[in-house]
Amino acid sequence: MTTSDDIAAVEVEAANAALYAALEAGDLDALTDVWVSGADADDVRGAVCVHPGWPVLRGRASVLRSYALIMAHTEYIQFFLTDVEVELAGDVALVTCTENILSGGEAEEEGELGPLVGGRVVATNLFRRTAEGWRLWSHHGSPVLTSGPDEE
Amino acid sequence: MTTSDDIAAVEVEAANAALYAALEAGDLDALTDVWVSGADADDVRGAVCVHPGWPVLRGRASVLRSYALIMAHTEYIQFFLTDVEVELAGDVALVTCTENILSGGEAEEEGELGPLVGGRVVATNLFRRTAEGWRLWSHHGSPVLTSGPDEE
Repeated sequence: MTTSDDIAAVEVEAANAALYAALEAGDLDALTDVWVSGADADDVRGAVCVHPGWPVLRGRASVLRSYALIMAHTEYIQFFLTDVEVELAGDVALVTCTENILSGGEAEEEGELGPLVGGRVVATNLFRRTAEGWRLWSHHGSPVLTSGPDEE
Repeated sequence: MTTSDDIAAVEVEAANAALYAALEAGDLDALTDVWVSGADADDVRGAVCVHPGWPVLRGRASVLRSYALIMAHTEYIQFFLTDVEVELAGDVALVTCTENILSGGEAEEEGELGPLVGGRVVATNLFRRTAEGWRLWSHHGSPVLTSGPDEE
C-alpha cells in the first residue's frame, strides 16, 4: 500500500465508525450524512441496504426510512466492531466487519429498558470517495448463524 | 449512463450470471475463474465472501474451499435470479439481486435425490474490472427472513 492508500484506509475506517456511532446515538441526521446523496453520485441510483434478514432496499429515501423505523423500535443499541478490514479499489472502499451487538427493545413499562439481547452480524460496507469525503454506498448485514468451516 | 457504461453493465450482468451457472453446474474450475485472483488485483488481499448465516471468509483459498465444501453437500441447486440491478463506479461494479433457490441435499439412499427445498437469499456481489474482464471481488448472501416494511 502507498501512503495515500494508508490515509484513505484510515479515513474509510472513520467513516465506517461514524455509521455505527450514528446508530448508537439514534441520530438520523448523522446517519443521513454517512450515506451517499444524489449530488455526490450522479451516476448511481444511490444507496443500497440489506438489514439482517431483510430483502434489499434501494434508494436513499427507502434506506433512511428503514433506519427511522429501526430507531423507533430500538431503545438501546451498542456495537462492538471486530475483524474490521478495509480494501481499496480506486474511489471505492470495501469494509468488512463483525458487529457484536448489544441491544434493548421497547420496555413493557414506561421509563424502563426492555431486556438486553446480544447478537452477531457480519457486515459488508461499501464506501465511495466523494467531494465531501467517503460516503456509504451499500450496507449488507446478515446474522451469523453458524461458525462456518474455517472458524476454530 | 454513457454507452460504455451500458456495455459494462451488460458485461457485469454476464459475469454475475457466470457465478450462478458455475454453482448450478457444481463446477469449481468455472467458479475459480469468476473470482479475482492475486495477479488480477495486486493491491487487494483478494476475495471476500459471506455465505448465508456464515461469518466472513477472506482470501481466495478460503473462499474456494468453502464452495468445494458446499458443492460436496449439494446434490442439486438451481438459482432463479430476480431484481438484478447493476451500478457502476469506475472499475468497480455493484450487483444486487435476489437468489430464488431450489436445492436438494444428500439422499438417504444411494442414487436418489434428497428432498428439494426452496429458499430466498439476497446477494450483494461486487465485481472489479481486470485485464481478463470483470471478476468477483466480494459476495455477501443473506437469508430473507422478513418481507421488510417496504414490501407490499
